[in-house]
Amino acid sequence: MDLYKTILRRIIIMSSMEEVETEETVTCLHITLYHPCQEEKQVFRSLKFHKRERRRVDEVAKFGRDSNICHYNLMDTRVSRVQFTLQFFRQLNSSELGFEIKNMSKKTKLIVDNVELDYLNKIDLPWKCIIRFGDYQLLMQRQDGESVDYFETCFELAQASLLQERHLPLLQPIPECGISPSLVYSQGVRPIEMDENDL
Amino acid sequence: MDLYKTILRRIIIMSSMEEVETEETVTCLHITLYHPCQEEKQVFRSLKFHKRERRRVDEVAKFGRDSNICHYNLMDTRVSRVQFTLQFFRQLNSSELGFEIKNMSKKTKLIVDNVELDYLNKIDLPWKCIIRFGDYQLLMQRQDGESVDYFETCFELAQASLLQERHLPLLQPIPECGISPSLVYSQGVRPIEMDENDL
Repeated sequence: MDLYKTILRRIIIMSSMEEVETEETVTCLHITLYHPCQEEKQVFRSLKFHKRERRRVDEVAKFGRDSNICHYNLMDTRVSRVQFTLQFFRQLNSSELGFEIKNMSKKTKLIVDNVELDYLNKIDLPWKCIIRFGDYQLLMQRQDGESVDYFETCFELAQASLLQERHLPLLQPIPECGISPSLVYSQGVRPIEMDENDL
Repeated sequence: MDLYKTILRRIIIMSSMEEVETEETVTCLHITLYHPCQEEKQVFRSLKFHKRERRRVDEVAKFGRDSNICHYNLMDTRVSRVQFTLQFFRQLNSSELGFEIKNMSKKTKLIVDNVELDYLNKIDLPWKCIIRFGDYQLLMQRQDGESVDYFETCFELAQASLLQERHLPLLQPIPECGISPSLVYSQGVRPIEMDENDL
């Protein structure tokens, strides 16, 4: 009788294991953000850090100033209402999933590593790249997953400019707060105090 | 005095001409639609024909069954909630404006001329092309314009299959109403009557 019970229990455990759906991994875009005046202006204050945010694959992830339109809000009057968009897609003739970026700003170029995007230009994001516009620097790195229903984003804050590491040239013109990020961090100069109107 | 009046009038006309903004042309995607059972099922009944519809460039034009999500609604239970999307963009290092198409259907391939798009695959539309999915055929032709704020769409209805003209192979499997479009039109056979449940 005990043997019967044991066998029955094993059968139940095995069949319940089979019924559990295979857990699916989700592609995550890790975004490390840097702005030379973040400490004063808190331009990233509306973003959630170290938290994976899940989006449906048919959503266009919008980054910009207008919180009514953008999922990812940059608190900075110099930023366009929609600065850029990210979209999920699957590579033709491949199972590789990735992101397309499109510049939605008429006034500011968007630079992906060394490729300049004008207004309405789009490009497929490399697996790892640095995005720049104005004073903003975003290191984007894709963590591959299997899901074709969702993707995720996850933000981190960089304490120093991301460009030195990658040996990319600093952007012209002069940054918004008037001090080059390399000066701020290499010479220990703190950014000048901001007027409230600048916020 | 008359001469004075004439000169004054000319000056007024000239200056008012200068003040008028240059009229900007808008890129228009002309879409000619065909479905073998349109006459019976009226799958295109919610679309406006011979009317240019203007959209903002940041809008994703969605085609599909779900009228809550899609601008362009196909009245057919065989169509996915969102079948495909169209997006406006500007070619990199060029002033050329165009459209990107993305297949949003998990169950049906989208064929652009002879390129098969699976779910989440995308491609830039050629200037003129034929899109196919299931029994649907769409001839898409771009009329170039200058605006970077808007694009337009304009629909027409085709009375016969678009494939003969372009010598494209008919799609497998057998069309929804059980009769091949080439049979319907080349042999004058009318499609069989539909049950209400098929609608």
